[in-house]
Amino acid sequence: MFRYSRGVHVYETDMMGITHHSNYLRFCEEARIAWFFAKGLRVASKEAVFSLTVYETRVQHVKPTRYADMVDVDLQLRARGARLIIQYKLSVQGEVVARAETVHCNLDQNFKVQRLEPQLIKLLENEKWTETWL
Amino acid sequence: MFRYSRGVHVYETDMMGITHHSNYLRFCEEARIAWFFAKGLRVASKEAVFSLTVYETRVQHVKPTRYADMVDVDLQLRARGARLIIQYKLSVQGEVVARAETVHCNLDQNFKVQRLEPQLIKLLENEKWTETWL
Amino acid sequence: MFRYSRGVHVYETDMMGITHHSNYLRFCEEARIAWFFAKGLRVASKEAVFSLTVYETRVQHVKPTRYADMVDVDLQLRARGARLIIQYKLSVQGEVVARAETVHCNLDQNFKVQRLEPQLIKLLENEKWTETWL
Amino acid sequence: MFRYSRGVHVYETDMMGITHHSNYLRFCEEARIAWFFAKGLRVASKEAVFSLTVYETRVQHVKPTRYADMVDVDLQLRARGARLIIQYKLSVQGEVVARAETVHCNLDQNFKVQRLEPQLIKLLENEKWTETWL
Repeated sequence: MFRYSRGVHVYETDMMGITHHSNYLRFCEEARIAWFFAKGLRVASKEAVFSLTVYETRVQHVKPTRYADMVDVDLQLRARGARLIIQYKLSVQGEVVARAETVHCNLDQNFKVQRLEPQLIKLLENEKWTETWL
Repeated sequence: MFRYSRGVHVYETDMMGITHHSNYLRFCEEARIAWFFAKGLRVASKEAVFSLTVYETRVQHVKPTRYADMVDVDLQLRARGARLIIQYKLSVQGEVVARAETVHCNLDQNFKVQRLEPQLIKLLENEKWTETWL
Repeated sequence: MFRYSRGVHVYETDMMGITHHSNYLRFCEEARIAWFFAKGLRVASKEAVFSLTVYETRVQHVKPTRYADMVDVDLQLRARGARLIIQYKLSVQGEVVARAETVHCNLDQNFKVQRLEPQLIKLLENEKWTETWL
Repeated sequence: MFRYSRGVHVYETDMMGITHHSNYLRFCEEARIAWFFAKGLRVASKEAVFSLTVYETRVQHVKPTRYADMVDVDLQLRARGARLIIQYKLSVQGEVVARAETVHCNLDQNFKVQRLEPQLIKLLENEKWTETWL
C-alpha cells in the first residue's frame, strides 16, 4: 500500500501545542499528489491540479499530533461515477491519529465537471479498496 | 441568526485562482469564535480554546470562492451529549458556496474529555437548530 | 494616517503560544490591500495583484502577539523609481509589536517589470512619509 | 554545506500561480530545524523551539517559484553576541530564487533573552560563513 510520510512543522502547530486541525487537509493533499506522482500521472501542471478539484472533505481526529511527529499517511482510492474518492489513515509510530476522506471531481478551467481521465480510471481498477476507513 | 463575514485574502487563494479548500476550516473557526465572543463566553484564553477541541470536520463545496469575495458564515449550534455540533452555511452575495460541520469536545489540558460547560449548554438551549444543513 | 486592524486567529498561533512569525507578512499584505481599497484603486482582480508583486520583505519583532490580540497596522508608502516601498508599524493596545517593510514592483503576467501605475504615483505624492520606521 | 530540499505544495501557491511570499519564511524555518536535527541538537521540544525565537527576518525574491518546484535551501550560520544569524540561499535546479536572513535569540519561557547555548556556539565555530548572501 502507498504510504506518504512527513514531519509536523512548527508553523503547523497552534497555541494548544498540537497540529492545527486545518493542516490535516494539507497533509492529505500532499499524500494524494505524491500518489499521483508515484503512479506516473502528470499532476505537475495547473491543468492537472484542476482534475483533482475538492468537492467534499471529512476528517475524524483520534489523537493530537505535535511538532516533530512523523505522520504516515496511507491512502486508498476508488472511482464512483465521475467522482474520485480517496480515504486516508494518518498514524504516528503505528498509532492512528486521524482518518479522512476527500471527494474530487475533474473540472475544466471553466469549472465544469468532466469525466475522470481514462488513465486514472485504469489505475484505480488495480487499487485495493479494503474497507471503509471512516 | 448569527452571521460572521470576512473577505478572502490573496494568501488564501491557490494557483487555480480560488480559495484553497483547507481555508474553509479556518473561516469556520473564526466564525464560531466570533459567536462565542458575541455571546460573552470567555474564549480569549488558552484554556477556553481547549474547550472547543475539534473532533470531526466536514466540508461540502458548492461553488469556488475567490480573492476579495466577502464570505458570510451563518452558523447553528447544538449539544449532543458531551459534544458540541456546529453547522455552517457559507455564502457570497446570497449564493451558498459551501456547507460545513464541526464536532467539538471539551478537553482539559491532559486531553481528557470533560462535560460541556453549563454556561454553554444554557446558551445552546436558546439556539435555533432549523434543519440539518449537510 | 491609514490604520488597518484585525484580531489574531487560533490558527495563526504556534506551540509557543504566540503568533507565528510568518503571519506578520500576511497581516502586512492585508493592510496594504485595505489601503488600496480605501483609496479606490482597483485591486480586486488578478491583474491588480500582479501590480503589487513582492520583491523584498523585512520584519523586526519587538514583542510577541497572541491569540485574540487586536493588531493595529499603520502604514506609510512611497515610490522609489519603479518600486513601491511600504512600511508598517504593528501595535497592540498602543504598544509596538513589530515593524516591517515590503518592496514591490509592478509585474505584467510574464513577470516583466513595468512602471508603477500613474494613478498610484499620484496618490503616493499625497502620502506622508514621516521617517524611516526600520 | 548543509542543504535542505522540499517541493512546493499546491496550498503554498496563490492566484498568481506562484508560491506566496510568506511561505519562504516557512521554508527557512524548516531548513534551520533540519540543520539542528542533522547536528544532533535537541530541537524536538517546546523548550528547544524557544531557543530559536525569531527576532528579525529578511527575504529577497529573485525569481518566482511554482507548484512542484523542488526548492533547495543552503544555509550558513554564525553567532553575533547573544544572537544567532542564519542566511539562506534558495534555488531551483541551480538557479537562485531567493535569499533570506533570520536573526534569532534564545528566549526562556518568560520571553527573557538568554545566552546562546554553549553546545550551539561550539557548533557554530566550525561553520563556514563564506560571505554575506544579502
